[in-house]
Amino acid sequence: MDPALSKPVERTVRVGYPTTLAADLLDNFPSEVEIVPLSDGPGPQVDIEVWIPDPYPTRAMRTWPKLRGVRLVLSLMAGTEWIPGTVGPHVTICNARGAHNISTAEWTIGTILAMLKYFPFFLEMQREGLWKRRFEASARYAAITGDTSPLYPPVMLEELTGKRVVLIGYGSIGREIERMLEPFHVDLVRVARTARVGPEVHAVGDLDSLLPQAQVVILILPATAESHKLIGARQLALMPQGALLVNAARGPIVDTDALVDALNSGWIRAAVDVTDPEPLPEGHPLWSCPNLLITPHVGGSSPQFAPRALHIAADELRRYIAGEPLQNVVQAAI
Amino acid sequence: MDPALSKPVERTVRVGYPTTLAADLLDNFPSEVEIVPLSDGPGPQVDIEVWIPDPYPTRAMRTWPKLRGVRLVLSLMAGTEWIPGTVGPHVTICNARGAHNISTAEWTIGTILAMLKYFPFFLEMQREGLWKRRFEASARYAAITGDTSPLYPPVMLEELTGKRVVLIGYGSIGREIERMLEPFHVDLVRVARTARVGPEVHAVGDLDSLLPQAQVVILILPATAESHKLIGARQLALMPQGALLVNAARGPIVDTDALVDALNSGWIRAAVDVTDPEPLPEGHPLWSCPNLLITPHVGGSSPQFAPRALHIAADELRRYIAGEPLQNVVQAAI
Repeated sequence: MDPALSKPVERTVRVGYPTTLAADLLDNFPSEVEIVPLSDGPGPQVDIEVWIPDPYPTRAMRTWPKLRGVRLVLSLMAGTEWIPGTVGPHVTICNARGAHNISTAEWTIGTILAMLKYFPFFLEMQREGLWKRRFEASARYAAITGDTSPLYPPVMLEELTGKRVVLIGYGSIGREIERMLEPFHVDLVRVARTARVGPEVHAVGDLDSLLPQAQVVILILPATAESHKLIGARQLALMPQGALLVNAARGPIVDTDALVDALNSGWIRAAVDVTDPEPLPEGHPLWSCPNLLITPHVGGSSPQFAPRALHIAADELRRYIAGEPLQNVVQAAI
Repeated sequence: MDPALSKPVERTVRVGYPTTLAADLLDNFPSEVEIVPLSDGPGPQVDIEVWIPDPYPTRAMRTWPKLRGVRLVLSLMAGTEWIPGTVGPHVTICNARGAHNISTAEWTIGTILAMLKYFPFFLEMQREGLWKRRFEASARYAAITGDTSPLYPPVMLEELTGKRVVLIGYGSIGREIERMLEPFHVDLVRVARTARVGPEVHAVGDLDSLLPQAQVVILILPATAESHKLIGARQLALMPQGALLVNAARGPIVDTDALVDALNSGWIRAAVDVTDPEPLPEGHPLWSCPNLLITPHVGGSSPQFAPRALHIAADELRRYIAGEPLQNVVQAAI
């Protein structure tokens, strides 16, 4: 860690923030801070010590070349994978761990229920204005799950309650998802980079033996070299017929071609907030896959997000100014 | 109560059940029971003492004229409003209280999250294959809620967490909904026919003072003369702009014309599993209202429903045979 980061700062700290953010969100920033508004347009060099990048990487990356003297980046997002390549290794990077927990976990529970209750099908029925199409839901259930045992009543929705859920990624959002799953008494299998106990977490290396029992697989792990295409053709084939894959993490964690094949063959279902490539281009085969819900990377967004993220950034700034250890370091400056 | 219902039965009890149900669902019925399969087609008179009607009222009503000697009806459904008019006052009617709790509560949580996260809009975007339409979600948020304060990031989904939820109906399904709402730390206002404490439940007569604070209104009360059109134009106008009405109960509890108007004016949102009339006919104006999710009376259905309902019926039969008080009486025979 940069030794300057751990000694008290006795001067004003210049903090650059994007003009896309409402200035009143910075009201609770420490008084030692001088706020420097940054646009992403062309302009002269700006000296700042702390940078709050625009949450949209493309805008933030346009801003970076203008900045000079940055020692600390306070990202408002949970995912910071684009930042080290942009700012290099001599800058400390913190994320806004926690700011997206509630919204992302709600998105996850919402998409699982929407898929198990066939809402996409019923919305299609609603568009056609045909109540009688409801009886197709049963054939849908049998086709998706392979369960053709006596179906009664003839319209069949599924329950989340009691399902075997494999949760891959057990950081702060993963734990929030676990909390929101509690009323459904699911059989939860936690998976993270390394195995641990209390509660039991399996190593991602054990995935092959866990996937065959999964009815729902939730991805909420960071995008890293190890997680790249973690879910490919083999993993999708290991899941049982009708399993639901939920990607609330990053697109490249799933092999898109394999996902398209698994969906088109009717083997699995999916709900994804992220894709690879992203944005998903017009005409991409994923758009028209069956048994799929796509949302365009919006799972973490909410009116409560910006106040929460800025609150986390303000706390981190206070620690920085007081020379205390920072709490959400994702890259320590070398 | 029919005195015969409270004295031990020493003979075989003939129980009629619909042939639409898989016979192995009756495996755990008491041994004193003789199972009599009943079709809904024409046929000779059948003597039975206990009737398990087909869950579909129209089929069950076709069966009734053939039956003779029925003293007890064990409905597999929670809603039994069609039964007294069919069988008359000299028959005891029990419902399958509890069989739909989980599925209906899951439907309720699922539709709330689907509406707050704009899944119908994103599915429309998915159909068009246009990722860039995501930015319209923000205008949607502002238009629906009337909140045009600084929106950042520009795509805006809502959170269930912390919302004020008015739950109208506090029977066994209502309590199950409350249980599934727990992780969202909502500000829950319970409403039932009569006020009570521990936990606090408001009387339905106080609704006018409760609706103006409601962000979500959930209907899960029985269809009765008192609840008929409980939610009309005045009640919808009392709700704040952007409030979400969820009808998991019965169609006639809401005034359909008033609902159509409130939706078309953009005042409120709704998710309904039930309608009035039902089935909703082709061309009905409700089909094309904005900010609405219609599911065709499927909220209670699930593969777990039939085993649960038959389990409840078997327990009631055991009590009937032992001469013990029945647990889920909705009409005592006179």
